[in-house]
Amino acid sequence: MNGASGSSAEILGLIRSGTASTRAELIAKTGLSRSTMAQRLSELFEANLIVGGGETPSTGGRPATRLAFNDAAGVVVAAALGVTGNRVAVVDLSGRILAEHEEAHSIADGPTVTLERIAGRAEDLLSEAKIDRGEVWGFGVGLPGPVEFAAGRPISPPIMPGWDGFPVADWLQEHFDCAALVDNDVNVMALGEREQYFAAEDQFIFVKLSTGVGAGLILNGELQRGDQGSAGDIGHIYVPGHDVVCECGNVGCLEAIIGGRALARRLRAEGLPTSSSRDVLERVLAGDTAAVLAVRDAGRELGLVIAGLVNSLNPAVVVLGGIFAGAGDHLLAGVREAVYRRSPPLATRHLRIVASAAGPRAGVVGAAAIITGHVLGERGGQ
Amino acid sequence: MNGASGSSAEILGLIRSGTASTRAELIAKTGLSRSTMAQRLSELFEANLIVGGGETPSTGGRPATRLAFNDAAGVVVAAALGVTGNRVAVVDLSGRILAEHEEAHSIADGPTVTLERIAGRAEDLLSEAKIDRGEVWGFGVGLPGPVEFAAGRPISPPIMPGWDGFPVADWLQEHFDCAALVDNDVNVMALGEREQYFAAEDQFIFVKLSTGVGAGLILNGELQRGDQGSAGDIGHIYVPGHDVVCECGNVGCLEAIIGGRALARRLRAEGLPTSSSRDVLERVLAGDTAAVLAVRDAGRELGLVIAGLVNSLNPAVVVLGGIFAGAGDHLLAGVREAVYRRSPPLATRHLRIVASAAGPRAGVVGAAAIITGHVLGERGGQ
Repeated sequence: MNGASGSSAEILGLIRSGTASTRAELIAKTGLSRSTMAQRLSELFEANLIVGGGETPSTGGRPATRLAFNDAAGVVVAAALGVTGNRVAVVDLSGRILAEHEEAHSIADGPTVTLERIAGRAEDLLSEAKIDRGEVWGFGVGLPGPVEFAAGRPISPPIMPGWDGFPVADWLQEHFDCAALVDNDVNVMALGEREQYFAAEDQFIFVKLSTGVGAGLILNGELQRGDQGSAGDIGHIYVPGHDVVCECGNVGCLEAIIGGRALARRLRAEGLPTSSSRDVLERVLAGDTAAVLAVRDAGRELGLVIAGLVNSLNPAVVVLGGIFAGAGDHLLAGVREAVYRRSPPLATRHLRIVASAAGPRAGVVGAAAIITGHVLGERGGQ
Repeated sequence: MNGASGSSAEILGLIRSGTASTRAELIAKTGLSRSTMAQRLSELFEANLIVGGGETPSTGGRPATRLAFNDAAGVVVAAALGVTGNRVAVVDLSGRILAEHEEAHSIADGPTVTLERIAGRAEDLLSEAKIDRGEVWGFGVGLPGPVEFAAGRPISPPIMPGWDGFPVADWLQEHFDCAALVDNDVNVMALGEREQYFAAEDQFIFVKLSTGVGAGLILNGELQRGDQGSAGDIGHIYVPGHDVVCECGNVGCLEAIIGGRALARRLRAEGLPTSSSRDVLERVLAGDTAAVLAVRDAGRELGLVIAGLVNSLNPAVVVLGGIFAGAGDHLLAGVREAVYRRSPPLATRHLRIVASAAGPRAGVVGAAAIITGHVLGERGGQ
């Protein structure tokens, strides 16, 4: 993971991004000597990370071998855990999903039960896809709460009872016998959505509205985790005018007002039996007026908080994801209304506010990307 | 400004930061060949950017020459423009102020009058410090509004009548005959405060409370300008419960509620003749209860917005600057109260909220730093 210049990781990055694909181009880009370059490339060939991908069109003289990243050098297992469900997938090094499975769960079952279930599902998917365990580069996981990324464990997660401080990455490393990285679910969703659909955008905000509410911030092209790993934790921003008590122990938090539980409670109070975020969404999709109104109101409150982010961070793109992104225009309309009303023209003139295109797959694609990036950095070596 | 590895700029950076100071160390860090390194160093010596700073302690064999950055290779002229005053300084390449001058002005005098005054003052300071014009690397300026950094001009600045789109950098380049860069005033204050006092902090927020209100965000060690240059523009975030009309044309903006003009208006309404931010501050420092109360209330409202930033960005340090930082604990108390009430424990457990140490000098030190960084990148070459 060392960013030192001319490292194998840097060379691999140049090849993977298509910035340079011949020895001559790589030498020109890095300033390395011919002999150092030969040594680094030979290591990358030995690690099976690059392949000689054909010859470049001849310009006279000996044709140069074109080098390419080997997408098939391995696979990554990825899991996106929400409060009420999870998705596990086997993903190749370019982010393509080779096999996947989704199921309902309760995060309150605690870490051991949940992780055993996830690990078992991963085994099944590998068998199903006929992939040998030796090909697995690592296990990437997204969790619905703040995560200390370096230590790989949740920290004081408000809606994950029993998980506080549990060494998730260590557990997976031990029980699944491969590298494991854990990050906040919205961070991995942001990485996945951007990698697949907005690779050129360096100022990118992903906002999740499900049972929990959170944001993943990619600024100057980098995922922001903050000083303690809690960057993007917008679910507990104060929304004036409400006295709802939040599970975090505070009053008037955004999540307590517009999270899936709050919306279900609102519909129940109106006589509509609704117990989960999914129930709320189904009512919206069925055209139930009370549910549509609830989601639109939620969009307005969310929009005021997003307007604060737009004013502060001036993103180019805001993507709305999570379960309620499935409500499409009903949610978008409320958010856009608030943002265009409350953010200055300079911050909104080129701003796009859209629903997630990756949808429920954003999490696993992003969880895979953190492993791929990490292992490429490591195997690329110094 | 090319970040290509093994560039002269990178070598200069390694030397300037003290990461490497001998040829052997530089070769080890960059992987460059001996001959390429010799060529790059020879260019840096010719450009007078490095000096042979003595010999390293002998470990047997020929003692290695220790290389050092030449702080005295040039000077930078810097100007920090506020709504009601400006400061111009001549600064060396390490950020040390060699000569400076502060005076009151009105930004509403418009760009030509203001810039002519600033340029004249810069000439005076160079004469005073006996510095030849040929030694000036460039002119860095901070302006109290959104700036399109690449173009060097303000964009739709709400409190700078007559400045919208004026090519400030081009004007200075032409009239002062040197490189010029222009950025938002709070961005340069953030850079200056961090360079001088918080160099080790990569998650750093600087908030200015003067006539205007704004923030400079340094995240993952990088100043955030956003997609259109308006990142940090927190002055127009919506504060519910107020119906004050802002100069931007919206209602309930933070700046319209706690900016210097709003505080002066509040004191006038209480029968205390007060016309400017400075007047308000003087009353606070004189212990006037109404003024102290006004600043403390302002701190609480500002604190709620800062709490939103703390939740979203999880900084390690929040520095309060601008004129009202002079109110010290009266302002800090209100801000801290709101942040600790509204931000989760994980985001606040190591958070420091302090008043600016650079004080009124943060702007010129930061404006100088953007020029120094830019020119080092350019003169360092590819």
